[in-house]
Amino acid sequence: MELNLVEEEELAPWRSPLARAINKNQSLTYARYLQLATVTPEGQPTNRTIVFRGFLWQTNQLKFITDSRSQKVEEIEKNAWSEICWYFPKTREQFRLKGKLTLVKADNPHPKLTKVRQTTWQEISDNARQQFTWPHPGKSKVEASAFKLAPPDRANPLFNFYLLLLDPTKVEHLELREEAKNRWLYQIDIYRTWTTQEINP
Amino acid sequence: MELNLVEEEELAPWRSPLARAINKNQSLTYARYLQLATVTPEGQPTNRTIVFRGFLWQTNQLKFITDSRSQKVEEIEKNAWSEICWYFPKTREQFRLKGKLTLVKADNPHPKLTKVRQTTWQEISDNARQQFTWPHPGKSKVEASAFKLAPPDRANPLFNFYLLLLDPTKVEHLELREEAKNRWLYQIDIYRTWTTQEINP
Repeated sequence: MELNLVEEEELAPWRSPLARAINKNQSLTYARYLQLATVTPEGQPTNRTIVFRGFLWQTNQLKFITDSRSQKVEEIEKNAWSEICWYFPKTREQFRLKGKLTLVKADNPHPKLTKVRQTTWQEISDNARQQFTWPHPGKSKVEASAFKLAPPDRANPLFNFYLLLLDPTKVEHLELREEAKNRWLYQIDIYRTWTTQEINP
Repeated sequence: MELNLVEEEELAPWRSPLARAINKNQSLTYARYLQLATVTPEGQPTNRTIVFRGFLWQTNQLKFITDSRSQKVEEIEKNAWSEICWYFPKTREQFRLKGKLTLVKADNPHPKLTKVRQTTWQEISDNARQQFTWPHPGKSKVEASAFKLAPPDRANPLFNFYLLLLDPTKVEHLELREEAKNRWLYQIDIYRTWTTQEINP
């Protein structure tokens, strides 16, 4: 997977409406949850809720985390395309962000990315870290006691902790409030310049 | 697209936990919103929020509606596979339902399905019906006055009103409450019999 490795880029035009939505919905914990769609090697869609973990440096790339043993890792390694759907209940608006995903593992060749992987591990909650010690997700249930291991080292990420980056190339923003039904399409061109178009909702 | 046209089938084992989640979250309007992932002809995932409209008759098929002019219709006609992701904020649980979609148009050969298309049209709100008179969704924005047409006939669906059915064949249920971290996998076999398996969250 190629990765756009600039550390700073111009704020994309969808960043400001997205920041506003995040801000206006921040009283709802689950307004940081969104749905990530990927495709299986058989060409079937898969879809699950994940948690937004902020942006990568001063770029437009979104940060997420995943367990290496999760089914989506296998899918992403074969087809990096994804679309996230992010619905904000309070303001009744939706963002759809399409782009390629990058998995950042322990052996990532870029020291700055392994550093982000480490700081992200340090920033997440004890509960979130604990999940990486659980038995293999998706396999037949093992007894509950296996879920109660000592919390892992806070400083250094476990091997199965992956950072997941989304580099959006197409973004749609839909507003569905009574008084404002609007929809915008943002697209990036080959020079990584964004265009904005107002479209019918 | 083949359609399983039985009017009554045994309640699938995931129906009861799903009904409980819907019930416990019913104070939140948006707990009836969920995310539908499909795949483009180029093999890229797409993902958007849609509204649950109940079950088809006494079956396990979920009802939705769509505008014939929506991008997803084109995608579904080429690849009927989909996965919906349904997160319930109050009870902190997620359902993922994978299966094939069926579009029910005005010219559907089954009178019972065209009847459901009609009654579904009658049951939705004026606002929901009104959207089917709006200019072509996703095209360049036309002036706002075009969105203010007279409400359409309540009795008979507009031509571009499609019923959308999902026939799940694989369902995953994840509970993330502090006191209960559980995950179940439900799968249908070729005889349309469901198996239930408890798996690691």
